[in-house]
Amino acid sequence: MLIVKKFGGSSVADKERIFHVAKRCMEDYQKGHDVVVVLSAMGKTTDQLIEMAKSINPNPSKRELDMLLATGEQCSVALMSMALATLGVPSKSLNAFQVAMHTSSAYGNARFKRIDGERIRHELDGRRMVIVTGFQGINKYDDLTTLGRGGSDTTAVALAAALHADACEIYTDVEGVYTADPRIVPTARKLKEITYDEMLELATLGAKVLHNRSVEMAKKYGVTLVVRSSLNQEEGTVVKEETDVESMLINGVAVDKNTARVAVIGVKDKPGIAFKIFHLLGKKNLNVDLILQSIGRDGTKDISFTIARDDVEEAVALLEQNKAAITAQRIEYEKSVAKVSVVGGGVQSNPGVAAKMFEAIYNVGINIRMIATSEIRITVLVDEGEEDKAARAVHEAFLEN
Amino acid sequence: MLIVKKFGGSSVADKERIFHVAKRCMEDYQKGHDVVVVLSAMGKTTDQLIEMAKSINPNPSKRELDMLLATGEQCSVALMSMALATLGVPSKSLNAFQVAMHTSSAYGNARFKRIDGERIRHELDGRRMVIVTGFQGINKYDDLTTLGRGGSDTTAVALAAALHADACEIYTDVEGVYTADPRIVPTARKLKEITYDEMLELATLGAKVLHNRSVEMAKKYGVTLVVRSSLNQEEGTVVKEETDVESMLINGVAVDKNTARVAVIGVKDKPGIAFKIFHLLGKKNLNVDLILQSIGRDGTKDISFTIARDDVEEAVALLEQNKAAITAQRIEYEKSVAKVSVVGGGVQSNPGVAAKMFEAIYNVGINIRMIATSEIRITVLVDEGEEDKAARAVHEAFLEN
Repeated sequence: MLIVKKFGGSSVADKERIFHVAKRCMEDYQKGHDVVVVLSAMGKTTDQLIEMAKSINPNPSKRELDMLLATGEQCSVALMSMALATLGVPSKSLNAFQVAMHTSSAYGNARFKRIDGERIRHELDGRRMVIVTGFQGINKYDDLTTLGRGGSDTTAVALAAALHADACEIYTDVEGVYTADPRIVPTARKLKEITYDEMLELATLGAKVLHNRSVEMAKKYGVTLVVRSSLNQEEGTVVKEETDVESMLINGVAVDKNTARVAVIGVKDKPGIAFKIFHLLGKKNLNVDLILQSIGRDGTKDISFTIARDDVEEAVALLEQNKAAITAQRIEYEKSVAKVSVVGGGVQSNPGVAAKMFEAIYNVGINIRMIATSEIRITVLVDEGEEDKAARAVHEAFLEN
Repeated sequence: MLIVKKFGGSSVADKERIFHVAKRCMEDYQKGHDVVVVLSAMGKTTDQLIEMAKSINPNPSKRELDMLLATGEQCSVALMSMALATLGVPSKSLNAFQVAMHTSSAYGNARFKRIDGERIRHELDGRRMVIVTGFQGINKYDDLTTLGRGGSDTTAVALAAALHADACEIYTDVEGVYTADPRIVPTARKLKEITYDEMLELATLGAKVLHNRSVEMAKKYGVTLVVRSSLNQEEGTVVKEETDVESMLINGVAVDKNTARVAVIGVKDKPGIAFKIFHLLGKKNLNVDLILQSIGRDGTKDISFTIARDDVEEAVALLEQNKAAITAQRIEYEKSVAKVSVVGGGVQSNPGVAAKMFEAIYNVGINIRMIATSEIRITVLVDEGEEDKAARAVHEAFLEN
């Protein structure tokens, strides 16, 4: 078996944790498996490097920032290889140049284009464990790039796909994917399996167990992921195309507090207005989340959307400046809202899901401000401070007893 | 003009010093010159990385250590490029992979084999300053290598040779090459020029202004070096094939306290014995410095040599083990000795130099324990504690008034 294992920065934050990971990886190696380990930078290294860069240049070149940040993972992999040697396991560390991890040219936010498996296979053939730098690649200019935060998950998936690995294990500080955040919903339980699509909806909605791009890539290349704890031997959650167990109606409840609502009131009901609004925001890299358009009345309509809280002032100012062009009567916004969502394959096929969710929220006396749905998700917007209570109520309705 | 400038770790130890170097490099760039800057790792970074490695593996793989250490220079160059951007100067940082600095495969002690100038020239053509990682290369396995301590000097010279640079400036914390170490000989003065060979003798003898290999390489490729201070605008010392000024009898006095003497007493006066002794030591990487062989008497002779103090116990133990094979009656050694040397083109052509040196030492009441000479150097061994006094006496005799 060829197994790709990914460990994040907190798992390799110091000497003791590096040895803990090394011993963990040894087990599969000693069973005769080929093991490829993907690592992030140690602990807070990336943050410290960014801070150092900003002290020298408040707005550092993204190319140079990637050059700087890439050193973090290179330290991790070299030290891990040394730890494995201490334990008697032969290994080699490899960086993005050595593996030839080709990405797009976008510094700071690159995407994998092509990964060469030759060097890794050569090392595995020599019965060496291979330790690869996560988060980084090289572009067509032969420059280092980084994949954006959480990119090491994507590195692991991309390597698993390129090497046709038999397993891709993502180690985290939680035991797997839960039906809800256990800090909010104490009765949450760990899922045995979840589909890529459900995982994507959960990740987008604030269950930050896996980096979104890594799930998209796993789906694209059919890489089965296992999310499990680096601290114990529990089985974790399998993420794959279709779950084997009979599909649950709902697999998870997600809460996202980092949200604000913007309403563009009284725009003319003619083609192209919505396009103009979201084109304006897109040009400024303001990522809009849920979009809702009211049914037209008096020849006007209202367009509402949610957006990350940090972006709301900029978005509103931009829309105010372009009020005439987008034919808006006024712009309103609310920062104190939160999203509660249910995610699961049963949403589309069971019209009763939405009603059941709304009932559960109504029963605990919470008002729903906005509703949006996808094939496998229903999201409601509630006032800030009520989201946890709403989540517990919904979790109880769908996922308990 | 194309100018290569090299700055050591202490010159880029913190934000302030990085900006100081950036401003220094800007001057030549703004005059319209092409500027390539070679940097070492910041301050004590390399030592800290080695310490971290040793805490994980007391005897880390040299390959993995090079992988780890190479991150140090990569941080320096990225931060320097950011500092230059802050000052409005366009630049790009490049590492060993990007430049394609090919070396021999010896991890930790690699030598340059071939440097590709193409990428650097491309950046210079775009009127960008180029900041290159010193100290590191890549070998035929596509692995990172390091050149050994002080290797950034060699990187600068190798780049100057590959790019046919018009000047190669090595910036240090001293103003140039002195006739003696000013801490020992207060009357020492800065030399305007010195030949490669004289510089090599001085470096070997403990005047650590330039890394030896860098001088050897400069000599081989005819690269004229300038050693100057990063702290002021003084002209520094030019190191080249032949000095323009009429050759001084003696250009410098050097002191080396890190030395010990070993004597192999009463070996048979037959061919091959000296070979055996130094072959034994060479196999264990014990570097012998001066070698002296007494004239045979009663069919035996004595062979003495000097060696770094840290190596003396190992060398003596090795010789004791092989006493029979090398036909030695006994092995003696002394750790408390020091070397004092005079270096200059006039040594060979002026037989009086040796006599003058011995007289100066005799006049201050110091006993000479051993004498060795080369074409441009005379070295005497004295008891530890007397070397500074001897150096001052010799400096006065040759280099004052």
